[in-house]
Amino acid sequence: MLDTETTPSNQRITLSHPVILASGSPRRRELLESLGLAFEVIVPNVDEEGFHLDHLSPAEVVQFLARTKAQEVYKHHNQYYVIGSDTLVAIGSEIFGKPKSKEDAFRMLKALQGNAHQVHTGIAVFSPDSREPDSQTQIPPMVCQSLCTTVQMRPLSDAEIEAYITTGEPMDKAGAYAIQGYGSTLIERVEGCYFNVVGLSLYLLDRLFTQLGQPLLRA
Amino acid sequence: MLDTETTPSNQRITLSHPVILASGSPRRRELLESLGLAFEVIVPNVDEEGFHLDHLSPAEVVQFLARTKAQEVYKHHNQYYVIGSDTLVAIGSEIFGKPKSKEDAFRMLKALQGNAHQVHTGIAVFSPDSREPDSQTQIPPMVCQSLCTTVQMRPLSDAEIEAYITTGEPMDKAGAYAIQGYGSTLIERVEGCYFNVVGLSLYLLDRLFTQLGQPLLRA
Repeated sequence: MLDTETTPSNQRITLSHPVILASGSPRRRELLESLGLAFEVIVPNVDEEGFHLDHLSPAEVVQFLARTKAQEVYKHHNQYYVIGSDTLVAIGSEIFGKPKSKEDAFRMLKALQGNAHQVHTGIAVFSPDSREPDSQTQIPPMVCQSLCTTVQMRPLSDAEIEAYITTGEPMDKAGAYAIQGYGSTLIERVEGCYFNVVGLSLYLLDRLFTQLGQPLLRA
Repeated sequence: MLDTETTPSNQRITLSHPVILASGSPRRRELLESLGLAFEVIVPNVDEEGFHLDHLSPAEVVQFLARTKAQEVYKHHNQYYVIGSDTLVAIGSEIFGKPKSKEDAFRMLKALQGNAHQVHTGIAVFSPDSREPDSQTQIPPMVCQSLCTTVQMRPLSDAEIEAYITTGEPMDKAGAYAIQGYGSTLIERVEGCYFNVVGLSLYLLDRLFTQLGQPLLRA
């Protein structure tokens, strides 16, 4: 599976209707682009802090927010496949968001180092409205699911945590680390889908599009 | 860990001596670049088919070849840190190389689909000669290790295998698949280091450089 050429495959995936990614994340955009799928990006106007989700499990939270983000875009673009997604980091039921300060990043990394944690990513895909009248095909109007990947971070000394924070990489990431870049040297192992940790499981996305009658890989 | 900006960290890692990557793989180069490590690339002139390695385990094979490739470059560049690496795909002791034809790719994917397989990557790092006289530091002249990552591919129909081969992606990859690109939709889960599957575990690389007294992440 090791690449020996840089050129990505140029073959493009074509679906029955155009696609919108309802996310501002450049990593999600890059992942979708890696499939050769043409799509537009519309960032949904959703205030994530405005919901009271304390009664939900991490898996329920990411599915709720993925669906909410997709729906926000879909209501104005119902002739598209609209993909929404949400990712969070947790140890058990304790959720780690983006750090509010360097001290907050230190606190998170201190909790994550030497331990296994979970990364949950939910994906929702809304199906174009015009497909629905075709009741023969039994295509659901929306599909939504999440995956959990377990991530093991190696033990870090306080000095190593400080050094990592100094790189600037932790400050805009949930859980205060990136699984790419410097962060890749801190992650001993993952169990589950790797791209789920990056923010969009392409495996799950393909499974969801298959449920909508549009598998991504076709002859 | 989800990126919300595209700009990679610009901070550069500086080691005591310059670094050479003894590999022609653009993916390995990209992975090293993601660390902000400055390095040169020299492709070693090693005929991998010329060795009789049948008596070795997959882990021994990748360590032997990683060391051989690094040494080939190091003998002319012994004032550098020289990194060699080798990756192979196996189910138990059966090794899957690059497919020789589309039929060969079909045979491999038929064996891998619906099953777990192992990806072994060995890394060897030679230490600059000039460091050796300093016997106080106990720096070894060379370190070499390998990691194994288990990869679970989802079940594929013959038509799906044909469709994947048609994308052209399998033809230059060991095991006839890429874990990026289209291949990412086929991989249900990994257990172990993800970048080990891509071809260079940055986690292991950091551990090896730490053994050489040069941890990659420093304040």
